[in-house]
Amino acid sequence: MIVSMRPKSTENEVNGVLEKLESLGFQHHISRGVERTVIGVIGKIYPDLKDTLELMPGVVEVVRLSRPFKLSSREFHPDDTVVRVGDVTIGGAERVVMAGPCAVESREQLMETAQAVKEAGAHILRGGAYKPRTSPYSFRGLGEDGLEMLAEAREKTGLPIITEVMTPADVGLVSQYADILQIGARNMQNYILLDEVGKVDVPVMLKRGMSATIEEWLLAAEYVLAQGNQNLILCERGIRTFETYTRNTLDLSAIPVIKKLSHLPVIVDPSHATGKWYLVAPMALAAAAAGADGVMVEVHITPEDALCDGAQALTVDNFRLLMGQLSTIQKPLQQATL
Amino acid sequence: MIVSMRPKSTENEVNGVLEKLESLGFQHHISRGVERTVIGVIGKIYPDLKDTLELMPGVVEVVRLSRPFKLSSREFHPDDTVVRVGDVTIGGAERVVMAGPCAVESREQLMETAQAVKEAGAHILRGGAYKPRTSPYSFRGLGEDGLEMLAEAREKTGLPIITEVMTPADVGLVSQYADILQIGARNMQNYILLDEVGKVDVPVMLKRGMSATIEEWLLAAEYVLAQGNQNLILCERGIRTFETYTRNTLDLSAIPVIKKLSHLPVIVDPSHATGKWYLVAPMALAAAAAGADGVMVEVHITPEDALCDGAQALTVDNFRLLMGQLSTIQKPLQQATL
Amino acid sequence: MIVSMRPKSTENEVNGVLEKLESLGFQHHISRGVERTVIGVIGKIYPDLKDTLELMPGVVEVVRLSRPFKLSSREFHPDDTVVRVGDVTIGGAERVVMAGPCAVESREQLMETAQAVKEAGAHILRGGAYKPRTSPYSFRGLGEDGLEMLAEAREKTGLPIITEVMTPADVGLVSQYADILQIGARNMQNYILLDEVGKVDVPVMLKRGMSATIEEWLLAAEYVLAQGNQNLILCERGIRTFETYTRNTLDLSAIPVIKKLSHLPVIVDPSHATGKWYLVAPMALAAAAAGADGVMVEVHITPEDALCDGAQALTVDNFRLLMGQLSTIQKPLQQATL
Amino acid sequence: MIVSMRPKSTENEVNGVLEKLESLGFQHHISRGVERTVIGVIGKIYPDLKDTLELMPGVVEVVRLSRPFKLSSREFHPDDTVVRVGDVTIGGAERVVMAGPCAVESREQLMETAQAVKEAGAHILRGGAYKPRTSPYSFRGLGEDGLEMLAEAREKTGLPIITEVMTPADVGLVSQYADILQIGARNMQNYILLDEVGKVDVPVMLKRGMSATIEEWLLAAEYVLAQGNQNLILCERGIRTFETYTRNTLDLSAIPVIKKLSHLPVIVDPSHATGKWYLVAPMALAAAAAGADGVMVEVHITPEDALCDGAQALTVDNFRLLMGQLSTIQKPLQQATL
Repeated sequence: MIVSMRPKSTENEVNGVLEKLESLGFQHHISRGVERTVIGVIGKIYPDLKDTLELMPGVVEVVRLSRPFKLSSREFHPDDTVVRVGDVTIGGAERVVMAGPCAVESREQLMETAQAVKEAGAHILRGGAYKPRTSPYSFRGLGEDGLEMLAEAREKTGLPIITEVMTPADVGLVSQYADILQIGARNMQNYILLDEVGKVDVPVMLKRGMSATIEEWLLAAEYVLAQGNQNLILCERGIRTFETYTRNTLDLSAIPVIKKLSHLPVIVDPSHATGKWYLVAPMALAAAAAGADGVMVEVHITPEDALCDGAQALTVDNFRLLMGQLSTIQKPLQQATL
Repeated sequence: MIVSMRPKSTENEVNGVLEKLESLGFQHHISRGVERTVIGVIGKIYPDLKDTLELMPGVVEVVRLSRPFKLSSREFHPDDTVVRVGDVTIGGAERVVMAGPCAVESREQLMETAQAVKEAGAHILRGGAYKPRTSPYSFRGLGEDGLEMLAEAREKTGLPIITEVMTPADVGLVSQYADILQIGARNMQNYILLDEVGKVDVPVMLKRGMSATIEEWLLAAEYVLAQGNQNLILCERGIRTFETYTRNTLDLSAIPVIKKLSHLPVIVDPSHATGKWYLVAPMALAAAAAGADGVMVEVHITPEDALCDGAQALTVDNFRLLMGQLSTIQKPLQQATL
Repeated sequence: MIVSMRPKSTENEVNGVLEKLESLGFQHHISRGVERTVIGVIGKIYPDLKDTLELMPGVVEVVRLSRPFKLSSREFHPDDTVVRVGDVTIGGAERVVMAGPCAVESREQLMETAQAVKEAGAHILRGGAYKPRTSPYSFRGLGEDGLEMLAEAREKTGLPIITEVMTPADVGLVSQYADILQIGARNMQNYILLDEVGKVDVPVMLKRGMSATIEEWLLAAEYVLAQGNQNLILCERGIRTFETYTRNTLDLSAIPVIKKLSHLPVIVDPSHATGKWYLVAPMALAAAAAGADGVMVEVHITPEDALCDGAQALTVDNFRLLMGQLSTIQKPLQQATL
Repeated sequence: MIVSMRPKSTENEVNGVLEKLESLGFQHHISRGVERTVIGVIGKIYPDLKDTLELMPGVVEVVRLSRPFKLSSREFHPDDTVVRVGDVTIGGAERVVMAGPCAVESREQLMETAQAVKEAGAHILRGGAYKPRTSPYSFRGLGEDGLEMLAEAREKTGLPIITEVMTPADVGLVSQYADILQIGARNMQNYILLDEVGKVDVPVMLKRGMSATIEEWLLAAEYVLAQGNQNLILCERGIRTFETYTRNTLDLSAIPVIKKLSHLPVIVDPSHATGKWYLVAPMALAAAAAGADGVMVEVHITPEDALCDGAQALTVDNFRLLMGQLSTIQKPLQQATL
């Protein structure tokens, strides 16, 4: 950490900072430049130290040099994390496709969709039993009934299932059914929930919050990893910007950035990012070309009847088409020299 | 709701939409313009109808004409909501000031701050016992011990207390201590938590999410109101933008917008919005001039020792100064003719 | 255009709107719903009509149904525009690669780079002679000398050249040298400049402004087209968001959106969007997979000596690598049924 | 400037950086911490040095410690700049009000408005003769005829006039009429235009770009100051965010930030920021309370007939009301101890 003093700071001001650092157990070294004095801080730095120092007289700015995340950082864990779910591996040489309806709406709807995406080549079945909805008047999911239908679909198709858990009290229950627990974008900073899924023995997929920087996303990942659960997958699903034509703006540059900063696998969800079915295939292909470890897309047998987000669901035919196109794009090797 | 067809849409396409509407129980009326046909939809519209219709052949766009929030809307509840907490009223003729430390750190720190803000004229004491922190390695609050200290501070000073509840399982406990339950920005769309605080008999203050539109904020309010709790206060605390000099961008125009759209009181938190103590007073004064029902500011007896957000805390002296300046700005009358 | 009245609007209010419309020469039709009255407006609508109507008593909202751009719209021009520059076509079946240094720095630097990108397979040479720089103290380009070097590089390599024009007074001069005139992101709404390049007989590439919506971008395109120049290319180069790890956020979903809304070709510039060389190749590949008509990348023989944006420049070796990877991704057919 | 090496960087890597610095004429000092080596750079740093160094092997990050703007910085110019226009001073003890129509539409409209705002207490008359419009099909102003009407209005009322100049070629002409040249938000980074207005002897008001950070805004100011024109005023007019209820988000925290970083006066334009007339008064009052040196508001005699931005114009009656409210808010003293 570097403390930058104002031009012409006094000896008193500089000494004040040095004494504060010493009282907190830090070593330091001073550099007196032509324009200003700069103090380097050596030791185990905690987040609030920046605040403390910036309040001292004569200090203009305090700059952090190391990144605040550790367990999710590639610096401290150079090899890629590979998450195994049944026969499927996420983060390895293969690219995975997660597909299924936004919400589980009925036994028939789910079974038919599950069968169809299985046949088209999907590796994992998605479906929401608990749905976070912007309006309290929207359909909020079938709850445990939905979980049971998902388990039945898994039995019928052999596909592992991923489903969202919205609140700490449900983690136990959902863990009994799910092969992967999904944490939604709105809950990326629901820290009690992150703690809770960090304690169970089920892989977790953590979606990026709509207004989360990549650093905040990795810090949220840190919550899960710090509790012991190392089977963690990240999922980019679009960030909030001023553009209104798409629901959110899919930030595909996050893929190579995450690959550089972290060892965790990254999945991309173009359905929620764009909110429009005809943008899903181009963005899924782009995600694959950019090096994503997989994509998650919504598929509905009759999108116009969907109880949730029908406008972004692919029909089964369009999903089949996408699977064909995806197969033409090779998964790039991890660029170790980044 | 208005369904806009593409130029030169066919009779089949138009009839498809009409039949769909009829099958769902809606009335309609058609207008055939020079350039395109437009269909009006009459009946009780639910959010996903837009998705359904936009997927139909020939449809270019579906435009919602009524607002999706009801209970929080001034259209359906013309009079201002006034929340009473002990002797304090929020949303009435007076402007309230909530002040105190970011986090309760110790008995001494809290008692000293509480006494000081009371003497300076604050109406409500704030202090966090449960702290949502971006990094898992930061101080996360004293928990129930902190709540007990808050209760003791209330007893000593007579000030009602506001404190954050982070997760549904804590709502019962925190409600036993708090006079107002605070829902933090990161939890604005934690719907299970919103449901839960909607069921208790304690006023709630709902902070705007960092990337929430005003409409989404009012829809989150709808969750609380729909469960029966009408003692709801909104709190603007800055939104996320590209500007990095301030932590967030305080959106003061949200105050008159909320006053127009809704009957709920609005408080402004300039401390979290700006992240810098020297911006707090100017922004608190601006909030008052713009018509806020109150401000919430962080005060610390020794900001440089704070365990949380010291850089944004006012000293007691600066808080006293602010109280003097605030008293020169009159609370504007509600502009009924907006 | 649809005028939505407030619930319980009076006859006087409704008549006021109808009379206003008639006085302005518009036809109308009324629909009286259970909750509110809605008035449809028929005729040639101009942008400010919305403002006029929203100010009338009883009006809650005015909703535009048709898009404000015409000449750039696919509705009115269904076939793809293909721009020809020498032997190169942009917007057709092939994907083009524009490559070269950010700025022309010297004869040697330019000739060497031009030769290298030509050999690696680039189709068009880029290089700035006039550079818009955030700070007045940065290198601002070689001006006409730079243009002459570009012309010489074209002669030597056979590659057409694209270079930026920053101000109306330079359009004549730059047009004598350039095969394509580039309008930079900061100038997307420099309307006098747009008018000017709309009058010359040289193709134009219009970069999206950092904070421009897709609609505003197409309206800027409208300026050029309205002056007669139909050889127009769009270029997505990242939008401004809260994420700071990348310089901007590359909005690749803009590619399929533009393909749907407009007939104009779209190029993607991953160098300026990301600001980091190691993100350029993944994003160029993603752009190709998403259906871009081409990419523009910065290449420098010795990036660490660049006078401008060295951090985002590819070395010649890395550019060669990228060309190989790009060739594995097929250009998707225009999806006519979108 | 600080160069942070990766953990376990080699001697070769460190020496590479040191030799590069020496070859460029910089002094340096090294600090070898437990985790990483850090190199301080001493000398006159130019913007692109960061890029150069970040490309060197072993370098993780390069952090700038001094601010890139000089002439606009309070560090180098501690006293407030006060701009004098006739009898009016901007940036001094008084707060100024600039008022008038968005666009000059006719002689009658302008004279009537000018008279009315003069009587209500405005200090400066605003009015656009050249209008930047998002759509080429909107009214673009009366040009020189408009300038002549403005000059006549000045003669009649005694009010100095402020009007926009859009392109370098018009600077001479507009300077003959205007008392203050306005640079619009879309032109904040039109560097040739900034150079040009930096050379004339007429005060300039520089609006913040819609997506400009405060630092970029001050760097744009630097262009004008560097050419010699020291009579520069800044104008906050809202930034682009995801919120769509208001046209832009007025960033009032920019006022105290500018006051801290710079000596230049700051005006606030709530009309363009909000786009809705009923938000103008609350935001003008808030700007005053936050310490703005003045406000600029649009006033129209018949807003519903305005050719430009009628929805944001105050009627003369509402403007009079606002002037009364503004007079109750004292201009805060410059907080010298910030």
